[in-house]
Amino acid sequence: MTKEDIQLDRIKFDDYKKKIISAEEAANLIPNKAVVGASGFTKAGDSKSVLPAFAQRAAKEDVAISLITGASLGQTTDADLAANHALIRRMPFQADAVLRKSINNSEVKYVDQHLSETIEQLQCGHIAPVEFAIIEASHIDENGFIYPTTSIGNSAYFAAAADKIIIEINTQVPTSFSGIHDNCVPSKYPNREIIPIQTVKDRIGENFIRLDPSKVIGVVFTNILDTPAQLSEPDVKTTAISKNLLKFFVEEIEKGALTKSLLPLQAGIGKVANAVLTGFIDGPFENLTMYSEVLQDSTFDLFDSGKMTFASGSSITVTEDCYHRIIDNFETYKDKLILRPQNISNAPEVIRRLGIIAINTAIEFDIYGNVNSTHIGGNKMMNGIGGSGDFARNAYLSIFVTQAASKNNNSISHVLPMVSHVDHTEHDVDVLVTDQGLADLRGLSPRERAEVIIENCVHPDYKNEIRDYYERAKEKGGHTPHILEEAFNFHIRYSETGSMKPQQEK
Amino acid sequence: MTKEDIQLDRIKFDDYKKKIISAEEAANLIPNKAVVGASGFTKAGDSKSVLPAFAQRAAKEDVAISLITGASLGQTTDADLAANHALIRRMPFQADAVLRKSINNSEVKYVDQHLSETIEQLQCGHIAPVEFAIIEASHIDENGFIYPTTSIGNSAYFAAAADKIIIEINTQVPTSFSGIHDNCVPSKYPNREIIPIQTVKDRIGENFIRLDPSKVIGVVFTNILDTPAQLSEPDVKTTAISKNLLKFFVEEIEKGALTKSLLPLQAGIGKVANAVLTGFIDGPFENLTMYSEVLQDSTFDLFDSGKMTFASGSSITVTEDCYHRIIDNFETYKDKLILRPQNISNAPEVIRRLGIIAINTAIEFDIYGNVNSTHIGGNKMMNGIGGSGDFARNAYLSIFVTQAASKNNNSISHVLPMVSHVDHTEHDVDVLVTDQGLADLRGLSPRERAEVIIENCVHPDYKNEIRDYYERAKEKGGHTPHILEEAFNFHIRYSETGSMKPQQEK
Repeated sequence: MTKEDIQLDRIKFDDYKKKIISAEEAANLIPNKAVVGASGFTKAGDSKSVLPAFAQRAAKEDVAISLITGASLGQTTDADLAANHALIRRMPFQADAVLRKSINNSEVKYVDQHLSETIEQLQCGHIAPVEFAIIEASHIDENGFIYPTTSIGNSAYFAAAADKIIIEINTQVPTSFSGIHDNCVPSKYPNREIIPIQTVKDRIGENFIRLDPSKVIGVVFTNILDTPAQLSEPDVKTTAISKNLLKFFVEEIEKGALTKSLLPLQAGIGKVANAVLTGFIDGPFENLTMYSEVLQDSTFDLFDSGKMTFASGSSITVTEDCYHRIIDNFETYKDKLILRPQNISNAPEVIRRLGIIAINTAIEFDIYGNVNSTHIGGNKMMNGIGGSGDFARNAYLSIFVTQAASKNNNSISHVLPMVSHVDHTEHDVDVLVTDQGLADLRGLSPRERAEVIIENCVHPDYKNEIRDYYERAKEKGGHTPHILEEAFNFHIRYSETGSMKPQQEK
Repeated sequence: MTKEDIQLDRIKFDDYKKKIISAEEAANLIPNKAVVGASGFTKAGDSKSVLPAFAQRAAKEDVAISLITGASLGQTTDADLAANHALIRRMPFQADAVLRKSINNSEVKYVDQHLSETIEQLQCGHIAPVEFAIIEASHIDENGFIYPTTSIGNSAYFAAAADKIIIEINTQVPTSFSGIHDNCVPSKYPNREIIPIQTVKDRIGENFIRLDPSKVIGVVFTNILDTPAQLSEPDVKTTAISKNLLKFFVEEIEKGALTKSLLPLQAGIGKVANAVLTGFIDGPFENLTMYSEVLQDSTFDLFDSGKMTFASGSSITVTEDCYHRIIDNFETYKDKLILRPQNISNAPEVIRRLGIIAINTAIEFDIYGNVNSTHIGGNKMMNGIGGSGDFARNAYLSIFVTQAASKNNNSISHVLPMVSHVDHTEHDVDVLVTDQGLADLRGLSPRERAEVIIENCVHPDYKNEIRDYYERAKEKGGHTPHILEEAFNFHIRYSETGSMKPQQEK
């Protein structure tokens, strides 16, 4: 088939064939100041041509949009949009260095949301409605309905809510990559329905995204792979974190609190979470399942090892090797996978019902178990809270992992007297893990937590000073002893000297 | 009937008649160091004789227990237990000055939990199991099952989980006070069921608490009313808070975001929440409903005014006048009420499904919308988080109210650069209200939030200094501008001088 034949073969709804346009033409259809809802969740299934074309348009023309996605985008899209001043507002998540700079200098208004809540807030009218949707699809059926690719995110809602829709058909994704999607849109208050998911395998929606074809104003073809995940090899610290956590699970099994299947796993994105999940391959685990947001390489390694039987998520974000492994062997994985909208993958209702074991990465945590997932130095946004709060609050076990200390000569301690920003409160954190050890906080009062966190999790270079803080704070009394005059001394010292260590030790 | 006849008439299960004992005898059956689960939720339906008798026993004997309740207790029970060193651990809530002192000097290990989560943590084995239960009931049926009184709290779970049970029959509560309870116990993981509540009126359990009669080791009679709620008359500030919030609801109705029935209301305990609810009587509202924890006088005033049609909670905590109004007119209220276990009244699943409007009281909040509900000065526990987190996280609207400033000469500002303890993060707070005004934070970035909070909510005596902090923090940049060196200056000044105002202004 010619390129054109291949393209037309992906559109079974004739009316759309007249609407095929270029990415540039599509980008020109986006009204200035529009609220745009775009597919894409941690680099998977994002708009690879239209949003980049809009960034190029903004380089030449004074136009900007408010952009809502599932989560972060691939390529350099967020960077290019930010660099060209094309973003008014951005939500609910991002992970790009250029955009981050624009957020931190207040050029872009970033609204950092629990990933389950964007649809809630849109549907309730708490935030301005999505006018314009851009959704990546693999193909279009006879009804004009679209088949999503490697993520669902908020796409089903955007398609239902937007007045105008651009479909971006990615011919890199085979049309056979289908059957794993489960799309639905929640009913409005006061008639919200039960989410009838009782196991990780339960399907409640449709494989395609339903939409009103008259809203489709353009179909754009692209042929670009998802930006691959960059997974660095586990290092000494991530391996130690993984071992500490796996030992905990083995002990929970030994004491009868969990079976060898544990309970459905959720894991945040990144190398620590990936190392922990990969570690399950060698342990006494069997018939593991996931109910998570992002399915990474480790999920497919667990399938291949026979340790995992099913995984539910909102996106597949993997390395290029793993991507081809999935596509080439799709029939073997197909029955073990579901991709869901993020208001379902991250639904508090389902997370509590299934009893999820949630493993997420902290930027820093404090001696009482409060966790900072978003800010550096109390004021600078890093990436955003993502789904960590959706899971941590409602999980069977809420686990946060981080290195005890990092950077040159361990100049940053990630365990501190007080976190400089709280994303997960002491009420919502069960287990903390660093390369130094693990603190099981369940059922402990704040002072008991401080003892076990300082003893088990703090890097040796900081242990004396943090213990000294805690001992002196106790003299002032209180349920949660603190010395407010000194609570941020580590952060202040870092901002002044580039190290959290006292000057003589640097 | 004689007193004895009246008592025996309340026990339809003959085996228990042999088990009638005194409160002192029952207190002597509680093993030293036992984990005791006791009924009682915000002073309603608590153990009025056995726990007080245990406190007396502890005055003479070296015994102590870990005590888990629904929420706070009535009479001076928590105070007497604390004063007599009878508590090892206490959870999930308390509101007593004497106990608070013991918590803050670390004599009692207090675990401050989301009220929905105590049963979760017990059932998962995260905390030590309940061995001994003490549950207030109005009567006992032919199967030995018990009928709770003015609260349910965690009682149904305690009865199912404990090895030994003392039933405390309160003859002050008429046996006709029945039919409004809806008891159930969640199934264990991995077979947790859907909570099939789709409207505030839905019943999913049984009117009685099921238990194994062989576990009942004593039946104690009491004849003591619930400690009445003390409701002070609305003052200038609570009235202003109420007016500001009611104006917001009227505007939401006018713009079509809500109907005159709003959505089911939850309100925290206390005079501000009560004033707000009472304020609904005079507004353009109709067919209001509640899905809350504590039903206060205002609920019954709303019934009587015809403005409210149904209320679901976990306890009825009212003034003595209102208590008698309910008992004397029970038939008129009976079909409008359900009392539920607190893992159901506060279930994240149900709160999000019903779309609750949650109104809770803050101790303080900061310019970015973080809320402190528990600690004074960063270290001293006040009462606990209660159910505010269960509701705030999952509500349709999460609203926090407080006075802009309080105490002599408004020496305490309740709006601050940074809260000294975070219980509800910026991600979970939609609307903040003080007597000065209302800040609608929906969809705003942190800097936008700061502008509206400083402009609308801060007391005039503190406005210049807080604005100055914010303006100087902005010069340092960041998504959430802060000056960590000064973030707690208000708290530090208060602890040093007794006022948050600079010395010259005191």
